[in-house]
Amino acid sequence: MKQWLSDTLAKLNLVDSMNQPEGFTRLSYSKEEWKAMAVFREIAEGLDLEVHQDQAGNMIAKWVPEGVSQDLPAVAAGSHLDTVTNGGGYDGAAGILCALAAVKHLKDNHFSPACPVEVICFASEESARFGVSTIGSKAMSGMLDLPSLESVTDQEGITVKEAAEERGLNWEQFRNAERSQEEIASFIELHIEQGLRVEQAKADYGAVTAIACPIRLLVTIEGKAGHTGTTPMGSRQDALVASVPLIDFISERAFELSAKSSLPIVATASTIEVKPNVMNVIPAKAELGIDIRSVDDQLKEQLEQEILEKCREIEETRNVTISSLKLVHNPSVFLDQMVHHALVDAGRTEGFTPFTLESGAGHDVMNMAKKWPSGLIFIPCENGLSHHPDEKASLEDLLKGVLIIAAYLRKETGE
Amino acid sequence: MKQWLSDTLAKLNLVDSMNQPEGFTRLSYSKEEWKAMAVFREIAEGLDLEVHQDQAGNMIAKWVPEGVSQDLPAVAAGSHLDTVTNGGGYDGAAGILCALAAVKHLKDNHFSPACPVEVICFASEESARFGVSTIGSKAMSGMLDLPSLESVTDQEGITVKEAAEERGLNWEQFRNAERSQEEIASFIELHIEQGLRVEQAKADYGAVTAIACPIRLLVTIEGKAGHTGTTPMGSRQDALVASVPLIDFISERAFELSAKSSLPIVATASTIEVKPNVMNVIPAKAELGIDIRSVDDQLKEQLEQEILEKCREIEETRNVTISSLKLVHNPSVFLDQMVHHALVDAGRTEGFTPFTLESGAGHDVMNMAKKWPSGLIFIPCENGLSHHPDEKASLEDLLKGVLIIAAYLRKETGE
Repeated sequence: MKQWLSDTLAKLNLVDSMNQPEGFTRLSYSKEEWKAMAVFREIAEGLDLEVHQDQAGNMIAKWVPEGVSQDLPAVAAGSHLDTVTNGGGYDGAAGILCALAAVKHLKDNHFSPACPVEVICFASEESARFGVSTIGSKAMSGMLDLPSLESVTDQEGITVKEAAEERGLNWEQFRNAERSQEEIASFIELHIEQGLRVEQAKADYGAVTAIACPIRLLVTIEGKAGHTGTTPMGSRQDALVASVPLIDFISERAFELSAKSSLPIVATASTIEVKPNVMNVIPAKAELGIDIRSVDDQLKEQLEQEILEKCREIEETRNVTISSLKLVHNPSVFLDQMVHHALVDAGRTEGFTPFTLESGAGHDVMNMAKKWPSGLIFIPCENGLSHHPDEKASLEDLLKGVLIIAAYLRKETGE
Repeated sequence: MKQWLSDTLAKLNLVDSMNQPEGFTRLSYSKEEWKAMAVFREIAEGLDLEVHQDQAGNMIAKWVPEGVSQDLPAVAAGSHLDTVTNGGGYDGAAGILCALAAVKHLKDNHFSPACPVEVICFASEESARFGVSTIGSKAMSGMLDLPSLESVTDQEGITVKEAAEERGLNWEQFRNAERSQEEIASFIELHIEQGLRVEQAKADYGAVTAIACPIRLLVTIEGKAGHTGTTPMGSRQDALVASVPLIDFISERAFELSAKSSLPIVATASTIEVKPNVMNVIPAKAELGIDIRSVDDQLKEQLEQEILEKCREIEETRNVTISSLKLVHNPSVFLDQMVHHALVDAGRTEGFTPFTLESGAGHDVMNMAKKWPSGLIFIPCENGLSHHPDEKASLEDLLKGVLIIAAYLRKETGE
């Protein structure tokens, strides 16, 4: 099985070797994503699964043994194959690989499910191209806001609609990708952890209870431009200098709150744009992008309020004006407790130690969870590194993932 | 004269009215700079000056009265007509306008100089297009490093050489723009102050003693990327957070040093680039551009050293690596004391109060001063604003400038 995993992982990543210094670039609705999807189809068909692509580009590979009605709700597992620019070959791909391998493992062991099993490869999970994430799983769960999505463009001005139609999809048909409640019994996703908590807990894998969706703020600090050589230090309204106590506060306060509370909270000033950003002009404007996450929505909102209070304080003391825009405010998604327990049990059955934790990152499962009982497991990744050419999960950990998914499918589809 | 000043200012700026919400854009070696130069030629020829363009694109308008040898050293005044993007209509243009008006004033008053008088319009003073400033005056004073300049490009990849040749210049001839010591007796420039010190001193104009050229550093802070949602606050190497104490130190320490010393010092973290600068990734890298200026070169170097020590301290306490590159280290330029006194006297003769100060910004005169006795006067500009559509000097202040230049030329060219 390890050889199959290794070979199939490379195939899904369209390479001969996973050692790629420039990493992997398969952006949303790009030719490269579609090539990887075609490989997915080939491998799934090689396992005798029936594959079809839905109206949003998701690939659904279905296993319906003879004598089983294909109208029964399916037990499904899946993830995605698109990546960020120069990303890794495991984020998404590991989930697809392990789900396919779990089906292979069950078939190799002559198991026959009493209801359909599906491996779902979602289209366009990453926000790297369009700034919008999990398009495919939103479409499948009926959560896609098509009118607002239509005008969203990538850096080259290509809209989501144009990109999808370039891939042969029909935008008018997108909404028909939504599936009914009755089609799916439960959905699970396997993903690399993108952190180190499982490893630090000396566990084999993570069983996730909830997904911490972000509050995102865009804070604009407006000072005044001036010549760097002719404006005395005491007469300045430097927007970058005024942003210093805010950046500091975000980091320090999230650290304090996290230490004090039972659920972790993280907050990051992750983007900054200064204008005019030239050597001989004092920064007139600084725009900070702030990302706040916790499964504890109240704690997240508390920190948001404290950040806005800090902005008021800076306005008063630093002679600048500050405005803020809430870009995103998504409440946390709690995953199904029954599925969580089943994933804990599935791992234990195979002799692996689970660690229960929350996810700080969003995944396709957060959309699926709104409509179907859903669960998420994490396998460790080297140094917690992700969205990077060096991203890596070991074959041992991938194999553990395969066995856990297989155990889950066996249990949930057993007669 | 005020009407002439007002009309000519608009002409030199290629507009009917100086009220231009988008300001003025005449980049180095652009069509627009050349159009303004053509207007300069027309006006100068209207004043019966002999105009020629040198090999670097500088325009030289020469007044040689009958009976005066044109081989005698000229007394010269001038500035430039190029601007930054969306700049003002006075930076550079005021100096050209007042020098032309001074010649007109002397001619209107039937004064005849005993040696040639020149009005020089330098090409390409601003660094906005190519990141290199004062190209024309460097060429005239023989300070142009042509081989290193050749490969410098603008944002569209056009080289200085290509841009200059598009304007009809011959790159191979550029070095012949250098003039000999004997051709010029002295050079003066009038410029808007781009600050408020003259106004705060309740003086009429500034007589400048020295130009504070910058030390410029590029400091690169390298931390580590990570997912903003999955990396605990205590396990981060956030390059932006690590830059906070540095930005703060630069501003605070320059303020302290300036308060303590007789000559002012200013320092600015004026540019910042964060990578990858996306919402869900912790900043892995922050590049800060730092501009330090003082006429006191030793003080400037002291602050540079303190900034580099601060970098070492941050490396030790914040788990990041910091490297620095010195982009520019230009010693201050001291202007000729005799010319300074002459400009103080010229103003007093006309009943205006001078204020002696240093310039925090560079001007064409700093290159001319390396070869010829040179001086610089500042006229006030509204709110100290510059490089901005609202940049403005009053007609009263422009007229004072004209009378000071005229008095200087009369004195220096009198028999």
